[in-house]
Amino acid sequence: MKLFMEHGKIYVTGLGPGAAEQMTFQAGNVLEKCSVIIGYTVYIDLIREAYPDKVFLSTPMRREAERCRMAFEEAAKGKNVAMVCSGDAGIYGMAGLIYEIGRDYPEVGIEVVPGITAASGGAAVLGAPLMHDFAVISLSDLLTPWETIERRLRAAAEADFVICLYNPSSKKRADYLRRACALILQYRSGKTVCGTVRNIGREGESCRILSLEELMDTPVDMFTTVYIGNSNTMELRGRMVTPRGYRDV
Amino acid sequence: MKLFMEHGKIYVTGLGPGAAEQMTFQAGNVLEKCSVIIGYTVYIDLIREAYPDKVFLSTPMRREAERCRMAFEEAAKGKNVAMVCSGDAGIYGMAGLIYEIGRDYPEVGIEVVPGITAASGGAAVLGAPLMHDFAVISLSDLLTPWETIERRLRAAAEADFVICLYNPSSKKRADYLRRACALILQYRSGKTVCGTVRNIGREGESCRILSLEELMDTPVDMFTTVYIGNSNTMELRGRMVTPRGYRDV
Repeated sequence: MKLFMEHGKIYVTGLGPGAAEQMTFQAGNVLEKCSVIIGYTVYIDLIREAYPDKVFLSTPMRREAERCRMAFEEAAKGKNVAMVCSGDAGIYGMAGLIYEIGRDYPEVGIEVVPGITAASGGAAVLGAPLMHDFAVISLSDLLTPWETIERRLRAAAEADFVICLYNPSSKKRADYLRRACALILQYRSGKTVCGTVRNIGREGESCRILSLEELMDTPVDMFTTVYIGNSNTMELRGRMVTPRGYRDV
Repeated sequence: MKLFMEHGKIYVTGLGPGAAEQMTFQAGNVLEKCSVIIGYTVYIDLIREAYPDKVFLSTPMRREAERCRMAFEEAAKGKNVAMVCSGDAGIYGMAGLIYEIGRDYPEVGIEVVPGITAASGGAAVLGAPLMHDFAVISLSDLLTPWETIERRLRAAAEADFVICLYNPSSKKRADYLRRACALILQYRSGKTVCGTVRNIGREGESCRILSLEELMDTPVDMFTTVYIGNSNTMELRGRMVTPRGYRDV
């Protein structure tokens, strides 16, 4: 891959779920080499100290399109720009919007630099829940009709996927995880092994393993990632483990 | 997280899909600090040169259980052991089997160190295909009955998930991708935007964007990861892009 051979490129870069340690060397190289770093205020604040000589630009949450245009304007001036997101820029991150807005800036190059997404990072904390086919579903209905989310929850539950839920809750959506669990319970046992991880890779990281019935009555916040096991998922050594398939041990 | 505070721990470590650059700093630290590195022969050969002072142990493919027991035996002697996999150790990797076999070695600690999985790494090459809910399905029926795989393909296709296929082909399963596409075509348009990525992050990395109809007649090998878009996925600037939701641009 040719990094930094041209000027005026946007590197849409995932920083991983939390700790700087969970960043890739590639993402570290991008931050080193770009003169401008753009992102959501909270993530920018996390890395600002490490790079005192960079230009940092940010916008608050929900101003994503504006943030993207900012990146293109800087890149159009000939600067290399790192557009940073937590997790993986390509999974519910900024990569898609950058490509969409990029229609207006055909002269600016775009490269996506992958990061550890919450599904991977949280799975490592819980044990090994994602060892078999899995579905990743966001419970946020900000950009998706709830009917679509419900249809996907039903399909994933019925076909015995391990399910990983992003954005399981917010102030306005306090009961969404409960609604999701109620749907899944139509297809899966209440004893299904589930897990939650909060603040992945950050200070105060915590996790919990519990049954689907218990999960239904558990309040979670927006910093939590939720895992619902498949019919073979078990608790082993205090961890959530999905066997890979036929027993071969 | 307390790394290396005790002796005799196994770090099940994902190295990312290809290039060393796609490894996390955390994985790099684990390799530095462990005295024994165990893995599948091919991956071990990729990193052996970088760490001339380590003990390297490996077994050929399909000898996974044996490889795990080797790791526990070394850790039981008081050594820190890195059990390495490509991609993410927690996604179709070795984390699950390590926990399963760990039942016989309760005194040995286990920690999973996440890596960039092929789904993330390949998505970055193609553009931004995984910006919305997605299902990850392995087409390998080595450890899973084909009926289960088929049921999951149908469910994911019907509920309009983006679908990412691991292990889409092998010598014995040359027509599996064709069979999967035929199933998905019962629910999705033949014009659905799809993508393939081969040798993610490695020499000779290549990708292709094509329709579901075309994908059905495209031979792929075991080094390829396949993406089938949802009903909104489009080709933009020569890339595969799934919009995040309602247009907000």
